[in-house]
Amino acid sequence: MSRTAGQVAPPQKLEVRLKILYNALCHTDVYFWEAKGQTPLFPRILGHEAAGIVESVGEGVTDLKPGDHVLPVFTGECKECRHCKSEESNMCDLLRINTDRGVMLNDGKTRFSKNGQPIYHFLGTSTFSEYTVAHVGCVVKINPAAPLDKVCVLSCGISTGMGATLNVAKPKKGSTVAVFGLGAVGLAACEGARMAGASRIICVDLNPKRFEEAKKFGLTEFVNPNDHKKPVQEVIAEMTDGGVDRSIECTGDVNAMISAFECVHDGWGVAVLVGVPTKDAAFKTHPVNLLSERTLKGAFFGKYKPRSDLPSVVEKYMNKEIQVEKFITHQVSFSEINKAFDYMLKGEGLRCLIRMEG
Amino acid sequence: MSRTAGQVAPPQKLEVRLKILYNALCHTDVYFWEAKGQTPLFPRILGHEAAGIVESVGEGVTDLKPGDHVLPVFTGECKECRHCKSEESNMCDLLRINTDRGVMLNDGKTRFSKNGQPIYHFLGTSTFSEYTVAHVGCVVKINPAAPLDKVCVLSCGISTGMGATLNVAKPKKGSTVAVFGLGAVGLAACEGARMAGASRIICVDLNPKRFEEAKKFGLTEFVNPNDHKKPVQEVIAEMTDGGVDRSIECTGDVNAMISAFECVHDGWGVAVLVGVPTKDAAFKTHPVNLLSERTLKGAFFGKYKPRSDLPSVVEKYMNKEIQVEKFITHQVSFSEINKAFDYMLKGEGLRCLIRMEG
Repeated sequence: MSRTAGQVAPPQKLEVRLKILYNALCHTDVYFWEAKGQTPLFPRILGHEAAGIVESVGEGVTDLKPGDHVLPVFTGECKECRHCKSEESNMCDLLRINTDRGVMLNDGKTRFSKNGQPIYHFLGTSTFSEYTVAHVGCVVKINPAAPLDKVCVLSCGISTGMGATLNVAKPKKGSTVAVFGLGAVGLAACEGARMAGASRIICVDLNPKRFEEAKKFGLTEFVNPNDHKKPVQEVIAEMTDGGVDRSIECTGDVNAMISAFECVHDGWGVAVLVGVPTKDAAFKTHPVNLLSERTLKGAFFGKYKPRSDLPSVVEKYMNKEIQVEKFITHQVSFSEINKAFDYMLKGEGLRCLIRMEG
Repeated sequence: MSRTAGQVAPPQKLEVRLKILYNALCHTDVYFWEAKGQTPLFPRILGHEAAGIVESVGEGVTDLKPGDHVLPVFTGECKECRHCKSEESNMCDLLRINTDRGVMLNDGKTRFSKNGQPIYHFLGTSTFSEYTVAHVGCVVKINPAAPLDKVCVLSCGISTGMGATLNVAKPKKGSTVAVFGLGAVGLAACEGARMAGASRIICVDLNPKRFEEAKKFGLTEFVNPNDHKKPVQEVIAEMTDGGVDRSIECTGDVNAMISAFECVHDGWGVAVLVGVPTKDAAFKTHPVNLLSERTLKGAFFGKYKPRSDLPSVVEKYMNKEIQVEKFITHQVSFSEINKAFDYMLKGEGLRCLIRMEG
């Protein structure tokens, strides 16, 4: 049989089976596909930035029913743990992102199989499949009027960057913001700064090709660290009379993290880390940079609680407050998914939409 | 003439001359008296934690008049710079703490002299003197009913620690708080945690002698890192099911700073640095500790704007919300000031009140 020969078992307790309609490729899929630096787990179905429709629900599922339009999310919200009950956290104890686990929680087994052999899950979503099974806590019911080929990108990268700005950095109207890294997450952080009414959005990237396309995202100035002899934090401090009000780091490079922290103004500056570093990275700074009233925070999935908060992000798209179209630079059908990987590996464009077929 | 033979010139533009009635010795005085690790500037009049009465005012001073009860403060508030106009900062551009400057801003000269030779200022306060001259921006008018022999300690260390908790860490009622360092500043941070209604106040110090006396400050548990093989952040995480909600670091030791940061809970933990580190210290942590939604901040003078906020801190003492008496463990007259230095150097007690004479 062809590539569709695999089986997707019915949803068990607190699970739902989804028909996936659209995916977008995110760098995290590529990272785990390359299996560099983690525990490889294969065969595995990747994919986590997607949109679909509920096909069936398992025992105990009351919040969702067949036909509901949904976004599966790589990190969940059980609504019962200390994190879910805290107003301050979105890092659910039960369903927090787990890149190593390849099975479902209910029975410790996979719902995917081929010729009787298990195929493992990825991030609890595994959306590169016509059908998938997810825990109900990782499935967000959204407005059925929302176009799934657009809002699918809100289920990971765009919300991650935008939320880091809006929910964690929280720039005031008129303030200055620096964003490190002009990938989709960084540009979404810029989008958040634009929405918040920032007066200056200063972007830092080593790739000058990104500057032109990035202008669509409200950026006012660009800094390429390679163009300067002094550290980029000093360049930014000079441009802004002492530093920006807020900065958001979206590369994962530890030196960029240090620059992003040290480029915020003393007294009130807030730096937010979003990019994921290597395992042996060490963030290092002189404590006086902190004592002079700078704040350093990390953001996870834009501090959005998936089920509680994402529906309102979709509404922001419906109200034209968020422009997601400009993030979708390519489109392919599912059979051409390798092209999406090629675009990502070449650094071309931002998001490649993958249309599921059949 | 005797030790009082020095001259204190009249206040110039935007300056006031104060009659100092009470001092308390703070570790910063001792540090600059020892002149370790800084640019020594002698002869110099130390002293900065004090209370007094306005004796005369210079040109342009409208907020203060002779007879006003005041606290001189080592860091000022000009009310006109970007920091003073920002709601988020208390680090005045004009009058921010400056440990090197020994002269007044108006003419770059000293107001102190002896036999025609200048004697330098310290922190803009130099309160170990019957009279001193300060910039009006460093002088806080307080309720004349407040007992100056008590509220003098609110002009530096106590406000620094208490404000770090109340204004920066901001623990919610019922939350868990760790405090590193049981000197006056650390105990004031505990006092802030008690006032905020913390359910557990876990204190860390290498000196077990401090634990008994510290019980007066609402501490519920003590941890001596020397009693444990594992890092203290792991000990605290085990005591608290994953970490405290807030921590405040009051030692200035960079390893204590790292522990204070890493002992807060993921998702919502906030660590606040207060202690001043050595010049070559490097704060180091794995970025994942930040990405899992911990916050690291520094606090300067408890985030109090001196002139705007300290009067209300004095009112809190008057309303019996703050208990300052328990910080004042010794008293001496000005002629016995060396005893105060001895107590500090031996680590005896918390604050030694120094009564000015005549």
